Amino acid sequence: MAKIKKQPRPKAQTPKGFQDYFGADVTARAEMLSTIAGVYHRYGFDALETSAIETVEALGKFLPDVDRPNEGVFAWEEDNDWLALRYDLTAPLARVAAQYRNDLPFPYRRYAMGPVWRNEKPGPGRFRQFYQCDADTVGASSVAADAEICAMLSDTLEAVGIDRGDYVIRVNNRKVLNGVMEVAGLSGDDKEAERGIVLRAIDKLDRLGPDGVRALLGEGRKDDSGDFTKGAGLSETQADLIMMFVEANAAVDRKLLSSQAEANDLEDEKTRAIISKRVAEVRDAGSVEARKVLNLPVESLAARNRVTLRYLSEVVGESNVGQDGVAELEQIAKLLESQGYGPDRIVIDPSVVRGLGYYTGPVYEAELTFEITDHKGRPRNFGSVAGGGRYDDLVKRFTGQEVPATGVSIGVDRLLAALRATGRIDTAAQGPVVVTVMDRDRMADYQTMVADLRNADIRAEVYLGNPKNFGNQLKYADKRASPVAIIAGSDEFDQGIVQIKDLILGAEIAKNATLEEWKDRPSQYEVPRDQMIAKVREILDRNN
Amino acid sequence: MAKIKKQPRPKAQTPKGFQDYFGADVTARAEMLSTIAGVYHRYGFDALETSAIETVEALGKFLPDVDRPNEGVFAWEEDNDWLALRYDLTAPLARVAAQYRNDLPFPYRRYAMGPVWRNEKPGPGRFRQFYQCDADTVGASSVAADAEICAMLSDTLEAVGIDRGDYVIRVNNRKVLNGVMEVAGLSGDDKEAERGIVLRAIDKLDRLGPDGVRALLGEGRKDDSGDFTKGAGLSETQADLIMMFVEANAAVDRKLLSSQAEANDLEDEKTRAIISKRVAEVRDAGSVEARKVLNLPVESLAARNRVTLRYLSEVVGESNVGQDGVAELEQIAKLLESQGYGPDRIVIDPSVVRGLGYYTGPVYEAELTFEITDHKGRPRNFGSVAGGGRYDDLVKRFTGQEVPATGVSIGVDRLLAALRATGRIDTAAQGPVVVTVMDRDRMADYQTMVADLRNADIRAEVYLGNPKNFGNQLKYADKRASPVAIIAGSDEFDQGIVQIKDLILGAEIAKNATLEEWKDRPSQYEVPRDQMIAKVREILDRNN
Repeated sequence: MAKIKKQPRPKAQTPKGFQDYFGADVTARAEMLSTIAGVYHRYGFDALETSAIETVEALGKFLPDVDRPNEGVFAWEEDNDWLALRYDLTAPLARVAAQYRNDLPFPYRRYAMGPVWRNEKPGPGRFRQFYQCDADTVGASSVAADAEICAMLSDTLEAVGIDRGDYVIRVNNRKVLNGVMEVAGLSGDDKEAERGIVLRAIDKLDRLGPDGVRALLGEGRKDDSGDFTKGAGLSETQADLIMMFVEANAAVDRKLLSSQAEANDLEDEKTRAIISKRVAEVRDAGSVEARKVLNLPVESLAARNRVTLRYLSEVVGESNVGQDGVAELEQIAKLLESQGYGPDRIVIDPSVVRGLGYYTGPVYEAELTFEITDHKGRPRNFGSVAGGGRYDDLVKRFTGQEVPATGVSIGVDRLLAALRATGRIDTAAQGPVVVTVMDRDRMADYQTMVADLRNADIRAEVYLGNPKNFGNQLKYADKRASPVAIIAGSDEFDQGIVQIKDLILGAEIAKNATLEEWKDRPSQYEVPRDQMIAKVREILDRNN
Repeated sequence: MAKIKKQPRPKAQTPKGFQDYFGADVTARAEMLSTIAGVYHRYGFDALETSAIETVEALGKFLPDVDRPNEGVFAWEEDNDWLALRYDLTAPLARVAAQYRNDLPFPYRRYAMGPVWRNEKPGPGRFRQFYQCDADTVGASSVAADAEICAMLSDTLEAVGIDRGDYVIRVNNRKVLNGVMEVAGLSGDDKEAERGIVLRAIDKLDRLGPDGVRALLGEGRKDDSGDFTKGAGLSETQADLIMMFVEANAAVDRKLLSSQAEANDLEDEKTRAIISKRVAEVRDAGSVEARKVLNLPVESLAARNRVTLRYLSEVVGESNVGQDGVAELEQIAKLLESQGYGPDRIVIDPSVVRGLGYYTGPVYEAELTFEITDHKGRPRNFGSVAGGGRYDDLVKRFTGQEVPATGVSIGVDRLLAALRATGRIDTAAQGPVVVTVMDRDRMADYQTMVADLRNADIRAEVYLGNPKNFGNQLKYADKRASPVAIIAGSDEFDQGIVQIKDLILGAEIAKNATLEEWKDRPSQYEVPRDQMIAKVREILDRNN
């Protein structure tokens, strides 16, 4: 049968790790991006759109857990230049801030939204193209800029439909961690590798628990599969110091319970009971529970903030950078409270470190605190949907001059998934009114009907498939989730009428009604042609 | 000075052929895309978003004027697969229609919007990443689908701000050209190369004029730079036949003028005068004038449509496919007129062929007809902003089964440029209210002010740069195009007031006013703190 020279057919397949999005999934994302852009704009941020492609040298190598050159990115050579798809929106911003440094207003507040690409092994729910939505302030060294981003993030989450109480923004400061490193004797230029391992180990607290982190600070850790990850090789004393930071939350809780002085900050029985339970959980499980949101009254959280700051100040001891970090956290909390963003929304949390190596000051993370059911039916916290921090050295790569910068990135697709999982966005799209075709030669008349409907701002279409089998047309309307079908054959045209079928009511009746009810509630109406629009609108309004 | 081992700094540069978009340029495009999506949705089209990356085999090689493999696209090898950035939105649609053929409703109406990438030599105004905005119907063989797309394109252009009369949508049919090819003996499988050269030659009529096209149909053509382009090598008779098609518009005009029978269709003096002038122009210049929009009354255009159809019917003679093509054009015109889209908006025009090889039936193109001034100050027609047609074989590549499809692609960036060039969109963005910082220690108070403004839905920001030099803060407000600055130092805080500066009025006064006027119209107001919002809103309303 095959002809000669016939080429094999190409496979119709989305490339591995990529996904196609249809209908309501696309429009829901577009609406969310538009809502977020509205909040960012109100805060004075300006839009920026760079192209998807950058030179490899401009992008730099800032992906977490990536050691080999160009790993993690899609890159190729073009006319002796290496080009790559951006892996985030921060690297392009640093390039823009350097390139247009004489023209942009500084501080430069900008937002950007669009896809980014990661050349990683795809997995379930893990795609190689996904959306980010960033806001950054470049050229402001004051932590007021960090506080502003946290406040804006809080407003943004509420604007897209996350209720207050269903999220928490946790703030920490890399300078505190740097202070701890200094105290532990890890601050020299020759200790960069160790610091990197420590950072990545701490960032895995959620997954590995305190014992796992501790192992990575020392010789290393063998995972369940038997693979061995080399550790930072710290001494016992050094590791103890780092763990004081890692387990700060649990330590603060214990302090609040044991010390009378601290307990004065936190008097009520209920709060003490919650914290007591948590301390036990952390000790027993050493797990993700340590980061669960504290379900405490806002005054108790404010008190807890104060105890946390005192504890961190003790841990960093004599380190100047460490004390700077604590002071900055204190100032951020104060600025936020003055604008009405209390610790029930934005809280100081030493367990947040963020994996990226380039952060230099405050770091922050937004977590959704409601439970969802995972794919195995188990309840779990939804987790992080946004994060960011201060990175004062990214622009310096280009210009040699330090340019302070801070910003946040929202994982739009995760946020959409969260809203969908909790029924906060409606993914059932309303289909168009379908004008069916009874008589192929009357196509011009059907087109006129559909034009009338559209001109009345009603979503409508004429059936454009082969009209021979009328059943197929109704099946099509069903697949399209059409609320209404219009039917007209030569009889109707002769009499100047149309048949209007309420498909939603029709489906309901077919499912539930008795014969009596069916007679009382007809789902098909015969109306004069000039009343078509009015009747359709009546049905649509009833169904909304 | 240089330290050892210091790496050279990366260049802060947009890669060659790419562009960064700032502020109002980004938001204007987002608004336009949202408006277009609204029209497409009303017509029953559903959103689809595929990823930027496809396999090279799925994309296929359908770029015009590209002969070498992978030329024109950005492609690279990844795990033994060749991947590439999409060069349009049609190839991914064909892949999707094949991949999900058992799940999608057919006919499948879908729209898609987003960037596409072309690996072409960049030039002025010619970028390697640009936006497209497509709508296609897959699975409808009826030309009613083509007519619908043309009507929707007309609605879309008017929805984004192109006035009726400032655009025209031209419709032709590849089958007519195929009929001409058949009559000229160019229809065999062995004549594919010749047909390709003929197609590309005709598509260059605008640029080369009839003589240039004629040369390319024969031996070939030497351009001004001396480069020689090989022609199709047709005989005189063959080339004459093709030229009858190429110069159809001029021929129709001559017919309308010379033949009494045709002239009955077109009686009024004014129309005859316009056409007469045009015939002379075409004869003299043989140039782009041939495609200038006919500034005729709609009845004359309808008459002209009829003459064009008769002429094309004569040219294709005995060819069945050619006569099919003419009949389809007639039906499209009839369907469109029944919906109120007369030839003043959508007209039959044999000069439209579209360069892409894959079209199999109706082809269409939207042209803006107003003049703009080019970069050398010369007036010229703005030209094409959208185009498309029927391609019945693209899905067949994957499945082996023919799936009819038709669709349009709007060049969003060109359309934006057109609206900008004619002042139809406002590119001057309104900046935020700037709360200045007189006293660094009062940052919490300034943040409270700015939070109050934002909560009142007023775009506002606090100055986050170094506040030492107050002049810099006002310069910043100027660069941000801020309408209002808020000023408060310790005096103001003590008295519970703020100073509000109307920066737009201030700038006007500084430019134009006499001293008297200046005294009468102060641009700075002192108001109690609790009246700040009201006063700011009053100033903003006055400036809108």
